[in-house]
Amino acid sequence: MWFGYRGKIVRVNLSTKKISVEPLNKQLVKEYVGCVGAAGKILYDEVPAWAGAFDPLNLLIFTTGPVTGTMVQSAGRFSVVTKSPLTGCFGDASAGGFFGPMLKFAGYDMIIFTGVSEKPVYLYVDDENIELRDASAYWGKDARECDRMICGDIGDKRFEVACIGPAGENLVRYAAIMHDDAGRAAARCGVGAVMGYKRLKALAVRGTGKVEVADPEGLRRVMQEVLEFYNTAAIVKRLRDGGTMAGYITMISIGDSPTYNFANEQFGEFDQKRAEKIGWPGGFEKILEKNSSCYMCAIGCRRVSKAGEGKYALKEGSVEGVEYESLSMLGSDCGIDDIYAINLLNDLCNRYGLDTISTGATIAFAMECYERGILDKGDTDGLELRFGNADAAIELVHKIAKREGFGNILAEGSRRAATLIGKGAEYYAMHVKGLEIPAHDPRAFQGGGPHYACSPVGADHMEGISLFVEFSGQKFPEIGLYEDYGDRTSTEKKAFIAKTIEDWWAFLTAAGWCLLVNPRYGAENRFIRAFNAVTGENITIEDALKAGERIYNLKRAFNLKHGISREEDTLPQRLLKEPNRKSNNAVVYLDKTMPEYLKLRKWE
Amino acid sequence: MWFGYRGKIVRVNLSTKKISVEPLNKQLVKEYVGCVGAAGKILYDEVPAWAGAFDPLNLLIFTTGPVTGTMVQSAGRFSVVTKSPLTGCFGDASAGGFFGPMLKFAGYDMIIFTGVSEKPVYLYVDDENIELRDASAYWGKDARECDRMICGDIGDKRFEVACIGPAGENLVRYAAIMHDDAGRAAARCGVGAVMGYKRLKALAVRGTGKVEVADPEGLRRVMQEVLEFYNTAAIVKRLRDGGTMAGYITMISIGDSPTYNFANEQFGEFDQKRAEKIGWPGGFEKILEKNSSCYMCAIGCRRVSKAGEGKYALKEGSVEGVEYESLSMLGSDCGIDDIYAINLLNDLCNRYGLDTISTGATIAFAMECYERGILDKGDTDGLELRFGNADAAIELVHKIAKREGFGNILAEGSRRAATLIGKGAEYYAMHVKGLEIPAHDPRAFQGGGPHYACSPVGADHMEGISLFVEFSGQKFPEIGLYEDYGDRTSTEKKAFIAKTIEDWWAFLTAAGWCLLVNPRYGAENRFIRAFNAVTGENITIEDALKAGERIYNLKRAFNLKHGISREEDTLPQRLLKEPNRKSNNAVVYLDKTMPEYLKLRKWE
Repeated sequence: MWFGYRGKIVRVNLSTKKISVEPLNKQLVKEYVGCVGAAGKILYDEVPAWAGAFDPLNLLIFTTGPVTGTMVQSAGRFSVVTKSPLTGCFGDASAGGFFGPMLKFAGYDMIIFTGVSEKPVYLYVDDENIELRDASAYWGKDARECDRMICGDIGDKRFEVACIGPAGENLVRYAAIMHDDAGRAAARCGVGAVMGYKRLKALAVRGTGKVEVADPEGLRRVMQEVLEFYNTAAIVKRLRDGGTMAGYITMISIGDSPTYNFANEQFGEFDQKRAEKIGWPGGFEKILEKNSSCYMCAIGCRRVSKAGEGKYALKEGSVEGVEYESLSMLGSDCGIDDIYAINLLNDLCNRYGLDTISTGATIAFAMECYERGILDKGDTDGLELRFGNADAAIELVHKIAKREGFGNILAEGSRRAATLIGKGAEYYAMHVKGLEIPAHDPRAFQGGGPHYACSPVGADHMEGISLFVEFSGQKFPEIGLYEDYGDRTSTEKKAFIAKTIEDWWAFLTAAGWCLLVNPRYGAENRFIRAFNAVTGENITIEDALKAGERIYNLKRAFNLKHGISREEDTLPQRLLKEPNRKSNNAVVYLDKTMPEYLKLRKWE
Repeated sequence: MWFGYRGKIVRVNLSTKKISVEPLNKQLVKEYVGCVGAAGKILYDEVPAWAGAFDPLNLLIFTTGPVTGTMVQSAGRFSVVTKSPLTGCFGDASAGGFFGPMLKFAGYDMIIFTGVSEKPVYLYVDDENIELRDASAYWGKDARECDRMICGDIGDKRFEVACIGPAGENLVRYAAIMHDDAGRAAARCGVGAVMGYKRLKALAVRGTGKVEVADPEGLRRVMQEVLEFYNTAAIVKRLRDGGTMAGYITMISIGDSPTYNFANEQFGEFDQKRAEKIGWPGGFEKILEKNSSCYMCAIGCRRVSKAGEGKYALKEGSVEGVEYESLSMLGSDCGIDDIYAINLLNDLCNRYGLDTISTGATIAFAMECYERGILDKGDTDGLELRFGNADAAIELVHKIAKREGFGNILAEGSRRAATLIGKGAEYYAMHVKGLEIPAHDPRAFQGGGPHYACSPVGADHMEGISLFVEFSGQKFPEIGLYEDYGDRTSTEKKAFIAKTIEDWWAFLTAAGWCLLVNPRYGAENRFIRAFNAVTGENITIEDALKAGERIYNLKRAFNLKHGISREEDTLPQRLLKEPNRKSNNAVVYLDKTMPEYLKLRKWE
């Protein structure tokens, strides 16, 4: 009898078309919890070092955690795990929405794809009825069209569809896997490109089962407390009211949200007024239709966009709205302050199936190269690629997804594009290990330095961001953060904070939680009580932190096995050299924090 | 002033379409000689470990040696160097014909391709006129059609064309690069798949310059001696008369040439009579039209085939004939003894642009899986895949090149196919590091054990085969092989012989020689005298062996950098367990030879 877990995993061999169902390994989830942890261990064990990301022996694993699909609040997550074509490292991307819970309802904790299909296919899962079906009719369609066409052809809109758009088909190295009417994305590390390489256009899943929990009454009690906290705490109200956008204007003001490809004032001042043009409260409200939520989440930070009018009008309205990361990277990081243009850029990324972070960062990189004369119109297909040129950015998104002209170069991501362009362009590619840095500048919180530099997947805000501790000064004694670490430009104890949050988040992600709830459950122990009530285990916070550390080390071990050198544990030179004016002129003091970090991780 | 070398290399960025010419680095060729050595160092330095074989930052280098294109006999070679999509290791493939010398005449020692083109292109080189040209019209054409169409469209048949066929376009992992009217191939390690990934269909090269040599008179004297030896020595006469096929019947009789996927008598007896049905003298003569040669080679081991008649007739006659490796691997290793069928299989591989060794080995692997019930007709698209079924083998070649049905699995090579098929198929995949073992069974000469097992590129007969020493008992005192090592089933000193020949061949290949001349120059010092006369250097045999060792170590270092584990230094279990009846029931005694080998290489 399984609690939380469904106890079954599906293996799909796209080369031989063979599908099998096997039991979940108890020891595996005991050690690696679930989701990215358990799937990561399988990835580590089964993908050989000599296999590239575009290889039939690379695995693509859709995986859930034990609390996914239960009554646990804000835990409807799934992850996609693979060897990343963008970084060559351990790759994972996690997402909310409704797909993860549906997979659990169908009876499975994960689906492991191996091989490469000869022709486009999609996986049909209707409880125990699992088939590979022809997807030729959907190949070339954008992710939203695909989602709707598949449901239409099945004749049952209750199927949850995860699919790629043209970007994944064209092996854009930062292609995303979209779901929820192409509204939500497992976006990072190029997981969509691996899906495209495998010629797997989509998964369509419906399940009628339920996830059994060990102690329903105990779980109800914890959730009661969580919901009370949701309904009273200011920190929850702020996220509920403003969405992930709630902090944007503040983040701009403290130099956390990057502008002009992290060059900030060198190309323009992105001041309070401009931030308000696109942020919330402010210009963002012009595109806002209403609020929405993921499965079983009473916070509801999702936003729905209007179509708008004029040249930046969306194809249609009532579609997924812009998130904080997308607004920052497609907007201010490109010097763009037109909310309608950003709304369109975001919707195009969703339709094509592109990671908005890497897309924005790669366009911002190209803009800086253009501004500095490294690129000219002869290189950019005639585009006047200046910062703030929204029309050029929109044109580039089309080109990238289709790999047309200059887009064929940017489709490789900023690291490869910089090498291909040459002439010193490397300095302006803002990535770690090939993964573009998200919208939190590590000069704004010193814990971000060792975290980004050493993160096995590259620079990703889903692996642990100490910003919320360093900015608020809030203490988290339950996970060992007893003090006020609110001096964000100090390096003291920042390695320790970074590591603690990484481990803690690794556990939360592996269990199935959305990371946005981390300071919003009111008490850290509620996660543990909920986890135990669901699974029937009896773990402590210390056990959870240890499991998180194990998972984090596993990702590192994957990289070592695959030839990733320690020299890649660093940051773009800009962040080590050019002061961030809005953050007390700090640079990242990596020389101070990294030795301590490596020691704490036992990675020296 | 350069002697031997032309002193220039071309860099072509397929992403940005930028072409540049830069000087050859003197220190580089001093240390790494040229060809695969010098290009290998560039590959090592410039391709990051995180880049897969299918990556814009993987390089594809066409490279020549200093003696290529001079009056040096039997030295018209070039190599293609890249990170291999078949092995994930250092990959190289070398070839004869006329392409290498023409590249030198055009003025270049090597051409380095980086990036990925948006659309199919070919590189046009007419002396200093270098252009990337549209190749859309040639995409999808077979290699012979492509070669002829390009020359026709240029309007000058004097252009030498190196190109891929559909197999390279379809990323078959053992696709070759063809040249000389699709008669010659740089075949191994999947170099053609990298070319296909880069959407580079062809290179068309014409040059009117000449290669200056330092001491023309001295060179003339050495070549006089070599030509006299060619005209008098029995060992040369035999190769001249019989081509590479000359040894086939003997190699079958001593258990060197594999039959039935190295399972030999388990599936049938490939006796003298059957060997004579396809070998020379014998059945081979039925398809033989005439002899031919590569550039500046008075041996002339090339063969030209007739079209033949009936169901195995070629599309046309007067095309490249079957070589020893192709006859063995497409023929006896698949249990096929119909010379017309083998002739067709060979021609199909040439047209599609497939490595005949890996193709034959992969089909043989599939046949054994079928015979043993691991595969059935449901897996093979209905093909009755028994050993000896030539019609099925022919059908499979079409399917592999087009990646149709079961061919889509075999297109990945035997190692990946075995993993995808499962059910113990791995045991029957006869490869090292993913590269299929050529037609020399290491159970037939114990030096082959540590050589194949540890060869950085995988199992390849071009990296050093001690068979000719172990079989003939001939001494090569000039390179340190003072004794008669002719007991081929003994393990004594075999590690030393293997290493010596590897180092020596690494030097010869890097200089530009064909390896078939190794025992056919009459004296090893003639290579050194010719090398010095060409380049103006004053090296000794010891220097040459040291340079060879340096190059061999470089390949190993590439692998270590790219995460290739030492555990891959081994052989298929079959060769360690199943005795070879025709070779005194020997297995490979790797436990005896490998420790000594690793010690000599300082690789422990």
